[in-house]
Amino acid sequence: MSGLFGQLSNKSGRKKSDLDEAVSFSEHNKGMATLTLPDIVPSPAHDSEALKKAFDGLATDEKAVIRILGHRNARQRRKIRETYQKLYNESLIDRLFSELSGEFGKAIILWTFDPPERDAKLAHDALKMCKKGVKHLKIIVEISCASSPHHLMAVRQAYTSLFDCSLEEDIASNVSPRLRKLLVGLVSSYRYDKEVVDLVVANLEASKLHEAIKTKQLDHDHVEWILSTRNFYQLRATFESYKKTHGNPIEQDMKTCRSGNLETLLKVVISCLESPEKYFAKFIKDSVVGLRIDEDSLTRAIVTRAEIDLMKVREQYQKLYKTRLDDAVVDDTSGDYKNFLMTLLGAPI
Amino acid sequence: MSGLFGQLSNKSGRKKSDLDEAVSFSEHNKGMATLTLPDIVPSPAHDSEALKKAFDGLATDEKAVIRILGHRNARQRRKIRETYQKLYNESLIDRLFSELSGEFGKAIILWTFDPPERDAKLAHDALKMCKKGVKHLKIIVEISCASSPHHLMAVRQAYTSLFDCSLEEDIASNVSPRLRKLLVGLVSSYRYDKEVVDLVVANLEASKLHEAIKTKQLDHDHVEWILSTRNFYQLRATFESYKKTHGNPIEQDMKTCRSGNLETLLKVVISCLESPEKYFAKFIKDSVVGLRIDEDSLTRAIVTRAEIDLMKVREQYQKLYKTRLDDAVVDDTSGDYKNFLMTLLGAPI
Repeated sequence: MSGLFGQLSNKSGRKKSDLDEAVSFSEHNKGMATLTLPDIVPSPAHDSEALKKAFDGLATDEKAVIRILGHRNARQRRKIRETYQKLYNESLIDRLFSELSGEFGKAIILWTFDPPERDAKLAHDALKMCKKGVKHLKIIVEISCASSPHHLMAVRQAYTSLFDCSLEEDIASNVSPRLRKLLVGLVSSYRYDKEVVDLVVANLEASKLHEAIKTKQLDHDHVEWILSTRNFYQLRATFESYKKTHGNPIEQDMKTCRSGNLETLLKVVISCLESPEKYFAKFIKDSVVGLRIDEDSLTRAIVTRAEIDLMKVREQYQKLYKTRLDDAVVDDTSGDYKNFLMTLLGAPI
Repeated sequence: MSGLFGQLSNKSGRKKSDLDEAVSFSEHNKGMATLTLPDIVPSPAHDSEALKKAFDGLATDEKAVIRILGHRNARQRRKIRETYQKLYNESLIDRLFSELSGEFGKAIILWTFDPPERDAKLAHDALKMCKKGVKHLKIIVEISCASSPHHLMAVRQAYTSLFDCSLEEDIASNVSPRLRKLLVGLVSSYRYDKEVVDLVVANLEASKLHEAIKTKQLDHDHVEWILSTRNFYQLRATFESYKKTHGNPIEQDMKTCRSGNLETLLKVVISCLESPEKYFAKFIKDSVVGLRIDEDSLTRAIVTRAEIDLMKVREQYQKLYKTRLDDAVVDDTSGDYKNFLMTLLGAPI
């Protein structure tokens, strides 16, 4: 058989390549979550009843809420949400919202959402705020460049379900044309999820990036295409090739373009692609320095990475700042908020 | 609570809009499949045994193969594939490949694949052939513009699993830069899947499309962005607004650009977005006219639409050509190939 079906008879359909050594995004982060689960996880009905009891007393039992939700993974939390709704005919999220307040309330609600829905809502809020500064758009870059491709797709699906339009459409309505192209490209990406690197391509694309920087065209189609299409490992090889051939790290050379917000976002893109754990270690450090800590950022970093790679973020933090990330949280937060963040950081049950 | 969580406390998170009247892609096509299923569907084990028996006789029992696989939906076929593999330690697809030949073999194998995997393979083959003519790229436009957003995502996932790179990367390696941007945009799309139309946006974007045509810039970012982002219903309103304001259907005005292959592909894009059933009715007609029928196209159209909207395609065919689509298939095909296509067209079990 030929023509239409050149490939269809191929047993596996796979090309022979580096596949034996291929490592997927999730494989790569295996065992790097800080979240701890009990040896025997109670049933969702049991957890729902315990939560209801924690809400129904004279005062809310925050410790019980942390003890339950702070030690359940995304799948288990989803089952608790569904079971709680069935048993009590009320939304667990709504009940948490009415029972809890302050930074603790925000953190536990963010944690209780399904991760794709949570990120869709964070992206939506960011787009409403982005007129106030490009920093709000960082979350969209984080979701696009520091997530698995599968998660990013789930976020796009959740976004259309929640907000009656696509994430791309909302980006286009809220973001300036110069940033729009990059952000739409990034959120539309579906990167190959294995460690396959082509060094010839890496060198070629490092040159294309250099050409764009030299001609001060950071908004060139090539820049957007390379950063929003290639897989993580390929891009790391490209950035290394850039440094080797042109002398400086690409982020440093970008400064010469004086491209303002576009440059700011591109730096976040490159940091997230190069090393999400380093990016989040720095992000957490930035959120706790200064006179007043930035709880929104601290919460976001810990809640969104606790099930992915917070162990690696913690290691990076130690390496970069010679102090413990856990100590920063203990020193700069308090009460239930502190207890909850420490729980997500792996404090014993 | 405020700040980070502006939306998070919102009960449903939905904006109040036309949502009550919203109709999803799959809802819209409900009941429009031609595939017929038996009242009582045998178990996958029973089907697998019957298929094995059909293969193991002195000659393959093609009628039995059609009777079984031609009356099972995608989910049922997947279960049969899995069960067959477990029971006999061989791939059903491989066995079909060795037992069957010619157009019938190709058609039944295409049908037996999981739809996302099937389309990923068709796209892969198309990219290998695209140097021989732009017509091969039509399949990529069809998958992007005449599928549900969920299906398109599944095709991208299947593509990376099968071919060690993303569909977008293979498009970039095989397709000229002028067509690349459009195709990458289209395959990366995740269109909002409900009937929500903003007429102000439709008028505005009709003007942008007109401006691009007037200045002969069919490769303008606006054209790519509008066609690869907006939902089906919104785009139909845009095309209507175009015709109303500028006098001609957009496809007709595009001719003045003399943009060669880009124009050819854009016409397919617009046809698929405007009315997939009309597009496929014409596509089938084109495949059966002339001295020699184009079986690859005929097979592809019937196999890929039998579970989606082949009933509507048939109605359109009748409307456009005043003849029956089924008669065209009966007149121009023969043997098991004809029997199988007629089965997918709804011939009784």
